[in-house]
Amino acid sequence: MTAQAAIPLGQSLRVLAEKADDGAALVTADVMIGDYRSIDDLRTFAKGCDVVTFDHEHVPNEHVYALESEGVSVQPRAAALVFAQDKARMRERLTEIGVPVPRWCEVADAAELCAFGDEVGWPVVLKAARGGYDGKGVWMIDGPDAAADAFASGAPLLAEQRVPIVRELAVDLARSPFGQGAVWPVVETVQADGICVEVVAPAPRLADDVAEEAEQLALRIAAELDVTGVLAVELFEVSAADASPVGEFSGRLVVNELAMRPHNSAHWTIEGARTSQFEQHLRAVLDYPLGATTMTAPVVVMVNLLGGPADVRPSGIDERVHHCMAHWPDVKIHLYGKAFRPGRKVGHVTALGDDVEVLRVRARAAADYLMNGDRDD
Amino acid sequence: MTAQAAIPLGQSLRVLAEKADDGAALVTADVMIGDYRSIDDLRTFAKGCDVVTFDHEHVPNEHVYALESEGVSVQPRAAALVFAQDKARMRERLTEIGVPVPRWCEVADAAELCAFGDEVGWPVVLKAARGGYDGKGVWMIDGPDAAADAFASGAPLLAEQRVPIVRELAVDLARSPFGQGAVWPVVETVQADGICVEVVAPAPRLADDVAEEAEQLALRIAAELDVTGVLAVELFEVSAADASPVGEFSGRLVVNELAMRPHNSAHWTIEGARTSQFEQHLRAVLDYPLGATTMTAPVVVMVNLLGGPADVRPSGIDERVHHCMAHWPDVKIHLYGKAFRPGRKVGHVTALGDDVEVLRVRARAAADYLMNGDRDD
Repeated sequence: MTAQAAIPLGQSLRVLAEKADDGAALVTADVMIGDYRSIDDLRTFAKGCDVVTFDHEHVPNEHVYALESEGVSVQPRAAALVFAQDKARMRERLTEIGVPVPRWCEVADAAELCAFGDEVGWPVVLKAARGGYDGKGVWMIDGPDAAADAFASGAPLLAEQRVPIVRELAVDLARSPFGQGAVWPVVETVQADGICVEVVAPAPRLADDVAEEAEQLALRIAAELDVTGVLAVELFEVSAADASPVGEFSGRLVVNELAMRPHNSAHWTIEGARTSQFEQHLRAVLDYPLGATTMTAPVVVMVNLLGGPADVRPSGIDERVHHCMAHWPDVKIHLYGKAFRPGRKVGHVTALGDDVEVLRVRARAAADYLMNGDRDD
Repeated sequence: MTAQAAIPLGQSLRVLAEKADDGAALVTADVMIGDYRSIDDLRTFAKGCDVVTFDHEHVPNEHVYALESEGVSVQPRAAALVFAQDKARMRERLTEIGVPVPRWCEVADAAELCAFGDEVGWPVVLKAARGGYDGKGVWMIDGPDAAADAFASGAPLLAEQRVPIVRELAVDLARSPFGQGAVWPVVETVQADGICVEVVAPAPRLADDVAEEAEQLALRIAAELDVTGVLAVELFEVSAADASPVGEFSGRLVVNELAMRPHNSAHWTIEGARTSQFEQHLRAVLDYPLGATTMTAPVVVMVNLLGGPADVRPSGIDERVHHCMAHWPDVKIHLYGKAFRPGRKVGHVTALGDDVEVLRVRARAAADYLMNGDRDD
């Protein structure tokens, strides 16, 4: 999707891919096959690039730092990226700058977890500090016994209070090295099994003051952490009754996660905003001025395509795409060129219009048909 | 721009390019360098393609026919494409199906031109039957003496009556092999020195009945000529006083040219319509159902970027892009990766909104600044 955005900007994109059939490698003229964990591969890749950026946060922070110290422009910089790589560092830093986060604690063993859970109440959320995504590395824990497997892995863990949430929201924005920030409208994200399945822009029935606070909170995080490129701030919305104010913040919004790259919660911007997150990310990391973030329709709904049963192969989707286009000519299809695996994000669909419930039904039905062949609309 | 559209559809695009630094070759993973006039290169290129299509009409018709007879799916087919390649064949065919065209005549020498001019009135428009574009191969002739150079070239020529036009319009549509057609709103095209400089969608102050007739006329041409893919119908709008009705057509619209490929008059659809002409062209030639052609804003203005003075190089445009993005954050920039030459189309800008005059001023100012460095807005 970044390649699509690079073309009209006249920017040549070089991709570091693990394999020649990675989605990004299939659609890019300049591809290097290599390992993002190898500093030698990263050095070779970066040579001749005006700027290096990411579509995931797994490049080791020390390698990012090494590239920077060798004169490569990496955006976001290692000092910012660490807060998207290490949840403990992120929680510490957000607490320092007065941003509401769940009560949390690093836990080295069952005894520490037990103490934390007894203090904040069970169940608690146990998270791997590093490397988790799409629900991986997150466990809902009823008591210390249930955490044995997680502790056995030896990975650093943190425990978090389970926030009594109304729903999940996200704020996506971009920020340039110059310091310009531009934020898209706050969206509602719908999760299933820890995976985002649906995004609605703008978040339906969100109070204006909460929306305004969410945008200000996200812009503040971007500025304080010196984020460059796209920043996604995943939020819990808390009812007024459950809210605990922190400084100037109402406590109605609690930060769950940060991502510093184009993010699933803003895929709707491809058709739904004057500037897509992919164009904006390129503009931001190149330190160009940012584009308008206004919406192109009153409501936009994005539904992820999650790989269905194992017998559905990408090569078999052609007929479904055909029927989908005929039945839902207004629904935009995005396929990522990925092999299908159950639960894997292999694409998304977007519907734009006026009525959120109509759009949800259409987008969900189109996605369900594409992945599962179901026709229950 | 077709590459941008192929990515989300999950289609792999192979490009036959003349040189490795052609715009399309720079942004496509699968490129063959070859000569579109060589049947051997075309055969090599077509091998393994599900469908072969065009972004210009200069591939020799006999080669297209040869590929078809060897089992390659070429869209549009040779039998349709000829009407975009040979203006005499196009005029003949449109006359046969009752579509209004200017009075015209093939002219082999000055005597035939003289007879035609004396009959319809001078000046007349002299055109090369084949190979013209962007004003090349078109001459306004006051009398037979002025045509000496054109006749000396030995190329087949036709003469046309100079139509008393109000303005130029275009209708863009797509049609699939299955026979589905989908048309975008009629646009006004503004020319300078025979080159399209600006497109306004929808055509301002166009009477509803004329707009409806334009769409019906274009859909009829597409069906009668068995066009597949995008068809651009360039039209002259004639005042009611000057109109000569033809069959069911009012004579207010006279067909100037046809193009069977994504066309400059529909570049505005990239942001301005739910389905861009590039996505729609791919859907059409692949015989997928077509997408919605509704507009994403009440008014869209596209202004071409025509290469300015020779001292402006693409490498020097970066600073101008920077200032352009800062000053016109709502204007979308499209660069084609082409070397700049005076008058050459090297990109375009698009502005979307409500007020046609405001958008024209903004889009023209942004384009003028990008190409010439002028700041007179």
